[in-house]
Amino acid sequence: MDSLAALMRKIDYQFDDIELLKLALTHRSKGAQNYERLEFLGDSILGFVVAELLYTKFPKLAEGKLSRMRSSLVRKETLAVVARDIGMSDYLILGEGELKSGGFNRDSILADTIESMIGALYLDADFETASRFIHTFFESLFAEISEESTFKDPKSKLQEAMQKQGMQLPNYKIVDTLGEQHDQQFTVQCSLVDLPVSSKATAHSRRSAEQKAAEQVLKLVNEKNGKFTA
Amino acid sequence: MDSLAALMRKIDYQFDDIELLKLALTHRSKGAQNYERLEFLGDSILGFVVAELLYTKFPKLAEGKLSRMRSSLVRKETLAVVARDIGMSDYLILGEGELKSGGFNRDSILADTIESMIGALYLDADFETASRFIHTFFESLFAEISEESTFKDPKSKLQEAMQKQGMQLPNYKIVDTLGEQHDQQFTVQCSLVDLPVSSKATAHSRRSAEQKAAEQVLKLVNEKNGKFTA
Repeated sequence: MDSLAALMRKIDYQFDDIELLKLALTHRSKGAQNYERLEFLGDSILGFVVAELLYTKFPKLAEGKLSRMRSSLVRKETLAVVARDIGMSDYLILGEGELKSGGFNRDSILADTIESMIGALYLDADFETASRFIHTFFESLFAEISEESTFKDPKSKLQEAMQKQGMQLPNYKIVDTLGEQHDQQFTVQCSLVDLPVSSKATAHSRRSAEQKAAEQVLKLVNEKNGKFTA
Repeated sequence: MDSLAALMRKIDYQFDDIELLKLALTHRSKGAQNYERLEFLGDSILGFVVAELLYTKFPKLAEGKLSRMRSSLVRKETLAVVARDIGMSDYLILGEGELKSGGFNRDSILADTIESMIGALYLDADFETASRFIHTFFESLFAEISEESTFKDPKSKLQEAMQKQGMQLPNYKIVDTLGEQHDQQFTVQCSLVDLPVSSKATAHSRRSAEQKAAEQVLKLVNEKNGKFTA
């Protein structure tokens, strides 16, 4: 484990109470004194800060869409990306079982510690400090998020994700057609060229089957990469 | 509709932007300009303030229990009680359909406007003002909440709820027994003396069946009264 001083330099905040920082990094595999209470507190702060930001940034957007945007910003995979940016893995305090099974790189644990860190910053300093941490480390996510990016159809999203990474566009092909003319079911396979990822989906139109398959592939890619492509 | 001045006296805050206050009271049955965005914002502020309060008030309580306590404090029925205390019904701005169907007294709408009011207070003033509103109007709920009250078994909760209202204790009786001795199922009916409420539940032990039936009766009583008895 690197020294906590390095972590405090990365997040640009010096804790008065180093025990609080340690608690924010301590997984329950280590015992009853762990980060979960701080995570509960930090989660609520993150929810508020993100809600306020979206409310202000999208003055015309209806509540349902704001909620969906927030979900995509605070979901586990997104928080894990932020945690990896900070290099949180190096500072986690895990029990032996989690250490051996690779807990230091598990999305769920990494995501938790972003929230527990927010809670710890709030308690050690104040709301402003916690909010600044969120704004700093979520900045690129906040900058990228848009109505379009959140509510775009899966095929467009997948295409953009591939282009962004300089990869070839996905292939779609019909692999099965079932039923009578007036009630046909199409099964489409979507596969990537540069990654060993593919998925099949069935629907009453070719277009819907493609969208469904693209959505599944996008999910698989996200799980593999831990990348935020929503 | 009473004058908004009266509402502002009740909540002890003068809005600079009266249109914002009106928006916080305007249901979607009235059109696209309604309280839902403010509700989204206010919900997140309420979540944070309640999380912080519970975190501080219960320093030993695990995260799972804190979460359940918060849920019981911010659920629709509880918020509707707060809204009725303020007399929010008198100020709601509803479309014709909702007006006719009694929307001014609907739990879900009343609960929403507590959240939208919190959002409006935040925007018109600041976080402190929104937080003060929450502390003022949730004070008695905050004072009452305890580990015991949240996690007590349903029979005890129902008994206390009855005693608190000076009512007779509930009756439990076995109304059916099914199956062989080693695999019996008991159906118990729980009924109240002073209210026309009863419910039946079945389980493998008399005790569990009683608990289940008590839980259902408690829920029915809560729905009727809009009272917070958790």
